[in-house]
Amino acid sequence: MNIYVLKFGGSSVATPERMLNVGRIIEAYYKKGIKVVVVVSAPGKTTDNLIEIAKKINPHPPERELDMLLSTGEQQSIALLALALEKLKVPAISFTGYQVGIITDPNFTKARIRLIQRKKILNELKKGKVVIVAGFQGVTEKGDITTLGRGGSDLTAVALASVLKAKICEIYTDVDGVYSCDPRIVKNAKKIKRITYDEMLELASAGAKVMQSRAMEVAKKFNVLLHIRSSFKRVEGTYVEEEKMALEEVVVRGVTHDENQVKVSIVDVPDVPGIAAYVFGELAKKNINVDMIIQSAARNGKNDISFTIRREDKKIASEIMEKVRKKLKAKEVIFNDDVAKVSIVGIGMRSHSGVAARMFKALARKKINIEMISTSEIKVSCVINRKDVKKAVMELSKEFGLLRRK
Amino acid sequence: MNIYVLKFGGSSVATPERMLNVGRIIEAYYKKGIKVVVVVSAPGKTTDNLIEIAKKINPHPPERELDMLLSTGEQQSIALLALALEKLKVPAISFTGYQVGIITDPNFTKARIRLIQRKKILNELKKGKVVIVAGFQGVTEKGDITTLGRGGSDLTAVALASVLKAKICEIYTDVDGVYSCDPRIVKNAKKIKRITYDEMLELASAGAKVMQSRAMEVAKKFNVLLHIRSSFKRVEGTYVEEEKMALEEVVVRGVTHDENQVKVSIVDVPDVPGIAAYVFGELAKKNINVDMIIQSAARNGKNDISFTIRREDKKIASEIMEKVRKKLKAKEVIFNDDVAKVSIVGIGMRSHSGVAARMFKALARKKINIEMISTSEIKVSCVINRKDVKKAVMELSKEFGLLRRK
Repeated sequence: MNIYVLKFGGSSVATPERMLNVGRIIEAYYKKGIKVVVVVSAPGKTTDNLIEIAKKINPHPPERELDMLLSTGEQQSIALLALALEKLKVPAISFTGYQVGIITDPNFTKARIRLIQRKKILNELKKGKVVIVAGFQGVTEKGDITTLGRGGSDLTAVALASVLKAKICEIYTDVDGVYSCDPRIVKNAKKIKRITYDEMLELASAGAKVMQSRAMEVAKKFNVLLHIRSSFKRVEGTYVEEEKMALEEVVVRGVTHDENQVKVSIVDVPDVPGIAAYVFGELAKKNINVDMIIQSAARNGKNDISFTIRREDKKIASEIMEKVRKKLKAKEVIFNDDVAKVSIVGIGMRSHSGVAARMFKALARKKINIEMISTSEIKVSCVINRKDVKKAVMELSKEFGLLRRK
Repeated sequence: MNIYVLKFGGSSVATPERMLNVGRIIEAYYKKGIKVVVVVSAPGKTTDNLIEIAKKINPHPPERELDMLLSTGEQQSIALLALALEKLKVPAISFTGYQVGIITDPNFTKARIRLIQRKKILNELKKGKVVIVAGFQGVTEKGDITTLGRGGSDLTAVALASVLKAKICEIYTDVDGVYSCDPRIVKNAKKIKRITYDEMLELASAGAKVMQSRAMEVAKKFNVLLHIRSSFKRVEGTYVEEEKMALEEVVVRGVTHDENQVKVSIVDVPDVPGIAAYVFGELAKKNINVDMIIQSAARNGKNDISFTIRREDKKIASEIMEKVRKKLKAKEVIFNDDVAKVSIVGIGMRSHSGVAARMFKALARKKINIEMISTSEIKVSCVINRKDVKKAVMELSKEFGLLRRK
């Protein structure tokens, strides 16, 4: 069967008008004889609103019940989309996660998919129906409702595309593709036509969030062709596929930045084994995501350790770090809010040497000071002063040829 | 097991504060060692809001998908109530209709319960948990979600009380019981302590709606003791039970009125068999509920037929009746909006003669003209001019001794 899986995010289905717009996108495929499976998120701010009400009742809600609550948002979306399609005379049927048989482990609020039953979906497709599946949710073998964590609808879509052997998995969102750099900063930013899974993963971890990372990993693992595109503009977006495919010959695919960063330094800690493990172990206990980590060379048996955290974690982190400081008898802990991260990403780096050096030179040319550096196989990230972000993104886009010809 | 089934309506769970209030009511039972099963409706206006959104997308929504949509409201309530109970340290677990096994026929939007599985509920009760069940919803044998129609949560509660052999089914609502007459009209109206199922059914059909009629019928059939009471005031409400129980010795249990009535008369129809069947058949096709029907004695081979309908059906009814008038070559169709129905209800009427006559005399005393009369075994209803309603209710309450001693 010629199956397409289409996934629509919350903003694409936030109002009755938008729901009908989504219906018309699906209608176009249906009329071409394509078998369509649709995955939808909860409309607009539904999930956030439900969390807010829940917290008013119980600031520490039991997770099983939270999943029971949150899964209703997607259930509303699938029903409303079925109404929209029937209105357009496109036969459709909606299924919740448990109805379709998306079996997960019992880790409420962050469950992992174990198994997806195909039979019900294939039966309805054969009958000529568009099948609408609630994203973000599954069910345990015992019959409890689970959710897959933030962005879980992407995962539902990719996993369905994989088990149904779909031709493509289209991720409809409010941007019209992945850009080589932020179009809000660089006016003539280029839309990327084709990109690899690895590059997308690095872009995501570097701050350019268009899709859930776990979903991207699953897509890579099962080689699911992705198309990230706009639900508001009917234009081609960005295809994500395996490296072996013919990709454009470029060294650096994109420049990205992340201003949601705080730099933390703990000064003068003893230079003995186990210190880093202790510091980051304490932070991990409270689920604080640490991004870049730099440890200075030791002098006089003392070290400095610096790392970045997300802005929202600053308060808890400062409590933890004060405890850590006392325990380690460190001199002080310094928090710096005025930082941001800029990164360049591209699989071309593997075969081209000196890419990092070109980045540092480009920043130096604009007198931008680099506070921290971290590199991976296909990414180089620098922490710089926040006021320099725009300048940096612009200069790096120029340096690596990422601008549209005007 | 000493099981209580408690049912809370939408207004009782409309806000986080009210949800916690419901939690505290349950907590009190739990602390006494009573096994509690709770049935909840959707919070506040949730169901109405969902219907409104649905109609914007598709004015004629397919019913399977409407049920998929509407069932989310109750699912939100059960999760939120579980959060409230956990906050109060009362162990609780929530179940949707399909999780608990409320099996219905596949008549979407008005499904009938076929079977309720007890095992899951009894297991959790044995573990010491409060079990929260979503009202209003069930599931077909094929696994599709169904709903039970307006007021369906009452039905869920009564059916659960029956299969679980509960000691009592308490219906928590925003009034503190059933009154012998409307307390908004008659200041010293008396709260009814005990009433029979039949009387409650007649009161409901006469306009005093506190509980879904189908639920009341099921309660009567399986002899489920009901207690209708307030979720805001901790006072005894009204018990509904079998006639054989010791009830207060009164002839008339209550006076009720219904202003949502329009009187329709079709004048000069032929006095031949099949005419009434034709008229009311046409109305039934469009689901118009006809209440009282009067057919005048024939003169010159012609008849008048009068009946009452609900105000919201007037527009459709007038279209149908115009068609009917032409077909029957009747003289005219008259609509009268200025009417209301007053009724007296009581099983005492069976053994006391002359009750209807006492009613007519009381109305005559106040110069209230009677336009239509209909009687059942335990009810007498009169259609009167709408401006006379308050006077009528007051006079009838006096006549039948339904006022509190001041």
